Amino acid sequence: MENLALVTGGAKSGKSRFAEGLVRAMGAQPIYIATAEALDEEMSHRIAAHLLQRGPGWHTVEEPLDLCGALQRTDGRGPRLVDCLTLWLSNLMMQDLDIDAALADLSQTLKAQTSPVVMVTNEVGSGIVPDNALARAYRDSCGAMNQRIGAVVDRIDLVVCGHPLRVK
Amino acid sequence: MENLALVTGGAKSGKSRFAEGLVRAMGAQPIYIATAEALDEEMSHRIAAHLLQRGPGWHTVEEPLDLCGALQRTDGRGPRLVDCLTLWLSNLMMQDLDIDAALADLSQTLKAQTSPVVMVTNEVGSGIVPDNALARAYRDSCGAMNQRIGAVVDRIDLVVCGHPLRVK
Amino acid sequence: MENLALVTGGAKSGKSRFAEGLVRAMGAQPIYIATAEALDEEMSHRIAAHLLQRGPGWHTVEEPLDLCGALQRTDGRGPRLVDCLTLWLSNLMMQDLDIDAALADLSQTLKAQTSPVVMVTNEVGSGIVPDNALARAYRDSCGAMNQRIGAVVDRIDLVVCGHPLRVK
Repeated sequence: MENLALVTGGAKSGKSRFAEGLVRAMGAQPIYIATAEALDEEMSHRIAAHLLQRGPGWHTVEEPLDLCGALQRTDGRGPRLVDCLTLWLSNLMMQDLDIDAALADLSQTLKAQTSPVVMVTNEVGSGIVPDNALARAYRDSCGAMNQRIGAVVDRIDLVVCGHPLRVK
Repeated sequence: MENLALVTGGAKSGKSRFAEGLVRAMGAQPIYIATAEALDEEMSHRIAAHLLQRGPGWHTVEEPLDLCGALQRTDGRGPRLVDCLTLWLSNLMMQDLDIDAALADLSQTLKAQTSPVVMVTNEVGSGIVPDNALARAYRDSCGAMNQRIGAVVDRIDLVVCGHPLRVK
Repeated sequence: MENLALVTGGAKSGKSRFAEGLVRAMGAQPIYIATAEALDEEMSHRIAAHLLQRGPGWHTVEEPLDLCGALQRTDGRGPRLVDCLTLWLSNLMMQDLDIDAALADLSQTLKAQTSPVVMVTNEVGSGIVPDNALARAYRDSCGAMNQRIGAVVDRIDLVVCGHPLRVK
């Protein structure tokens, strides 16, 4: 059975919508684990748009940093949608936390889950090399995270123009 | 029958060449609907290079804004190649026109076409998040457009290194 | 038999690791043709990380510019991994060399190889259009190179989250 899934794609490619469909197909009482924080107006607008798109029936958990804790607390209560890993990584980096340790923890936690987990991530490494070192470090970290979580999950889909390409 | 197709990919991935092949296979007397305007030398050079690549036998229609009108006027006269949707969207945004209404119109117009339409679009959302808000808005709009048109067409191809990956 | 392969993907997508696996499967005594030069600390760090990842058993040839020469000198001695074409292109551009002639030479040289060659390249054209003309020229040249080499090889893989999508 496919218990762990990773959904990737570019900005506004339809990743979240596709991931929501996967989660709904995995069981009743879906749980939305939001890693985003409404720190400015643009982000608030994005969060509200996602909420509208999901529709009713979701239990929402907000967890910008302790994703492993959120997964452990919600296991056994329904399929989970984590949206998204790249924002979580960015939150960790802003707090100067140990990325490597966090990814090792997440991999271990994922393997121990009994209820399904679908995670949304982003393709950020297919543009021109960024000018500034921080952006380069961020895109490298996103790529490394996607490889590492991609090795643990049962399926990977790349969403293009709203449609999935099965990768794993 | 596949009457409507969307071809996407990165810059210089071979999208246009692949789309031209699709259109030629769909019937004689192909029509090229160009959304680009030769506003500067670089753009003139790109337009000339595309013209050379297509070779003879194409009827060219230039239409930077009223894409629905161009489709309606050319329906029944041959298969159409629209190159490209992202430039059209950029033209609409520069004129401050209603994107949502334009996409609704385009979806309706496409569904009513009797001759084939192949549209070229671009992947612009797989790099690092842009610094400036206008670029973020543009890449979000491109993504939303690709999802919306992707829902209407019969097939979607992602072109990578000159070769198509069938998405839909 | 698949003698020539092109492996593409975004930054840190797992391209090199996948390409290394392909080369190892193609024969004993693999040869690593490195196009990178350790011009600064960040690049030295990246080169060292790739070296560690490959592990022992590779013969390394450093060749930032004369890739055709390196291929000719190593033919018949084992399968080759070229990592990567985009850095090679960037080296050519920095020396103001003729890109078109270099790509024609490379295509001819590749067709004449008797031992396998796996080449790593990068997707750099799926972000927002860059502000500066040099970056636009570079991403156009990368795309054109990927199309041209993509036409010569027997297989193309797009690596996403560490996993390959077969393109050709």
